[in-house]
Amino acid sequence: MARIVMKFGGTSMAGIERIRNVAARIKREWDAGNQIAVVVSAMAGETDRLVGFCREASSLYDPREYDVVVSSGEQITSGLLAMTLQAIGVPARSWLGSQVPVWTDAAHAKARIQSIDSQGLEEGWARGEVAVIPGFQGITNDGTNRVTTLGRGGSDTSAVAVAAAVKADRCDIYTDVDGVYTTDPRIVPRARKLKKVTYEEMLELASVGAKVLQTRSVGLAMKEQVRVQVLSSFTGDTAPMADTLPGTMIVGEEEIQDVESQLITGIAHDKNEAKITLTSVPDKPGAVASIFTPLADANINVDMIIQNIAHQSAGSASATDVTFTVPAADLARSIEALNQSKPVIGFAELIQDTRVAKISVVGVGMRSHAGVAATMFKTLGERGINIQAITTSEIKVSVLIEEDYTELAVRVLHTAYGLDAEDTAA
Amino acid sequence: MARIVMKFGGTSMAGIERIRNVAARIKREWDAGNQIAVVVSAMAGETDRLVGFCREASSLYDPREYDVVVSSGEQITSGLLAMTLQAIGVPARSWLGSQVPVWTDAAHAKARIQSIDSQGLEEGWARGEVAVIPGFQGITNDGTNRVTTLGRGGSDTSAVAVAAAVKADRCDIYTDVDGVYTTDPRIVPRARKLKKVTYEEMLELASVGAKVLQTRSVGLAMKEQVRVQVLSSFTGDTAPMADTLPGTMIVGEEEIQDVESQLITGIAHDKNEAKITLTSVPDKPGAVASIFTPLADANINVDMIIQNIAHQSAGSASATDVTFTVPAADLARSIEALNQSKPVIGFAELIQDTRVAKISVVGVGMRSHAGVAATMFKTLGERGINIQAITTSEIKVSVLIEEDYTELAVRVLHTAYGLDAEDTAA
Repeated sequence: MARIVMKFGGTSMAGIERIRNVAARIKREWDAGNQIAVVVSAMAGETDRLVGFCREASSLYDPREYDVVVSSGEQITSGLLAMTLQAIGVPARSWLGSQVPVWTDAAHAKARIQSIDSQGLEEGWARGEVAVIPGFQGITNDGTNRVTTLGRGGSDTSAVAVAAAVKADRCDIYTDVDGVYTTDPRIVPRARKLKKVTYEEMLELASVGAKVLQTRSVGLAMKEQVRVQVLSSFTGDTAPMADTLPGTMIVGEEEIQDVESQLITGIAHDKNEAKITLTSVPDKPGAVASIFTPLADANINVDMIIQNIAHQSAGSASATDVTFTVPAADLARSIEALNQSKPVIGFAELIQDTRVAKISVVGVGMRSHAGVAATMFKTLGERGINIQAITTSEIKVSVLIEEDYTELAVRVLHTAYGLDAEDTAA
Repeated sequence: MARIVMKFGGTSMAGIERIRNVAARIKREWDAGNQIAVVVSAMAGETDRLVGFCREASSLYDPREYDVVVSSGEQITSGLLAMTLQAIGVPARSWLGSQVPVWTDAAHAKARIQSIDSQGLEEGWARGEVAVIPGFQGITNDGTNRVTTLGRGGSDTSAVAVAAAVKADRCDIYTDVDGVYTTDPRIVPRARKLKKVTYEEMLELASVGAKVLQTRSVGLAMKEQVRVQVLSSFTGDTAPMADTLPGTMIVGEEEIQDVESQLITGIAHDKNEAKITLTSVPDKPGAVASIFTPLADANINVDMIIQNIAHQSAGSASATDVTFTVPAADLARSIEALNQSKPVIGFAELIQDTRVAKISVVGVGMRSHAGVAATMFKTLGERGINIQAITTSEIKVSVLIEEDYTELAVRVLHTAYGLDAEDTAA
């Protein structure tokens, strides 16, 4: 008997027929005598629909009310899956975030899980029940009991957090892809599926838009050493044993025996960034802090930052332009926060640009090899792609480019780093 | 300063533009210094969509999970209205059923409110906030904290219950009709709008399908003496004073001064009934109880009941046919419950028919006048409409007929009782 967390994404939950397929898959694990918690996403498209309502209601919506609205998508699928399981003879019940409870901080719309009370789930397992938990949602731990959500893709984090809380043997993430690829196969048909990838690489791939798993879920899995595997929902006839499933295992670096000869594990892209430039910011101590403090206070994650060399206008103090990126979804709120702080920051103009994309090359092999960045810049330069910003980490190099060049950039880099498979991924 | 509960139905909440209209109307009352609780329905069509999912998942769905699914529609609109109010400068927050809390019994899908804790709402009012409460939903009061719903149309009941709990000066029900009519104006263009109607009449009109207010809400208003008025959401320029609004006031009988000369106040129809006949039920003591006990245990409301005269088959004990109606939505569960009890009941065959309609004539004037039923039977008989069952109360006569004759029956009865207006209602 194993204790398994199974997580199903929006495509797997899109409609009752697919929910029946999910239920059948759960039943196989349940029939084998396992204790199962299922974490579900909203039906594909539902969260977008709900977010659209919120944006239409107010571009500066109250995130507490946003959470009330958007958390309902997972509530719906959790109830539907529980009744569908019952219909095929599997005892099941839904456990809302407020019922488990899944305690979070009060950073609405991007809350962080603080703790999960597993007592109710344990009692359900003792009764033979499958626990169905809506992903993405929690409840504030400050006595106010408000509904929270974890940010887009948060159901992955819910799944890993539940797996850690109940000490699950594994956390299976069923999604609409059958594993993690060297890059998006819709852009590069010769992308290859990876059998294993390290937490760290996955973290970089997820954070830059590989869209397989939410960043935070991978970080949490690394921290809690949760064995995560990414599987396809749509290959129903695979064996139930974990190690025979044809997905991608996300593991510690020590588990990857054959340190890959390849420098680069994958190439990711992300079109959900927006670029903000503040012109003529006074070049004095504390100026940068005055920009980023109000954004931090508004819980907005700033990613790439470039500060140009200070320039001296005639008859005025030294000033500089500061450019940075924020999630496109937070652009309106960012502009609002910056304009409110304009007297303190003292910038001249705010220029926004949402037509940008971030392209990243990722690989643990990079640590021991020089020249990765140089290859990237040279490859993009040869195609006339202008680089607007650069950030690097130990295992990643990212550049910001004009959005229109996204697919071209990914394709040429995939070839340049020798990642193309001999056959196409399809 | 008054304390006002305002309730908006699904048509009023269907989309952000309409929600903005609702917010503007609330703002007028708030600007006048009133303390306001708003109770909202789901967007029109949303609850049907969610119920459709449940039925598709399982015809014998677990009502606890059904409640988790269908309560989400009101959760969405409550959050959206709160943020829309904030956007026009009105402080507001949503209060889910579990947050108020609205305590109910555990009769899922048709729960009854037991008590409403008004402390949080009072604190919100002290801060100047409008409280936005999703109608239709509550939470079990038995320590399990499961989500409940009050049955279709339950938001009206939520509104009246909140009004009673907070001792509101009035409860304004905004709907897509501008008041209560002598009958459905879509069927009879000469239907007249009533200025006042008694709780009792409204109770009968609602329970037989006048569709303006949920039955239970009217019963609760009568019990708690809540002043309810029915208003249109779509005439935005009416004066804010209650007694100048052109809706229908629902009041105690003593408030109706000019006891209407008319015998009949209105004519209602209901197509949401299903007829079940059990053949050859043993004609012995306890037989009828054995039929209706399992239905009561399943929380299914049986309405009309006819027991035919017992007949004696050759060589067998005396037996009878029993016919009754249940809500069409409960038909599958009713059949399940009856089939499970078949050994105890001992019937031969179960015959179902959903193609039936209930037609009712209602009026407090009926108490002092004979001949109302006779006029009904004669009028329908002249048109060749067969009566399948009859029930009566002090102020109502109802008949069950073939569904195809619904509109014809309503029209001829409206004329027969002298209810036709000189001009058409439109």
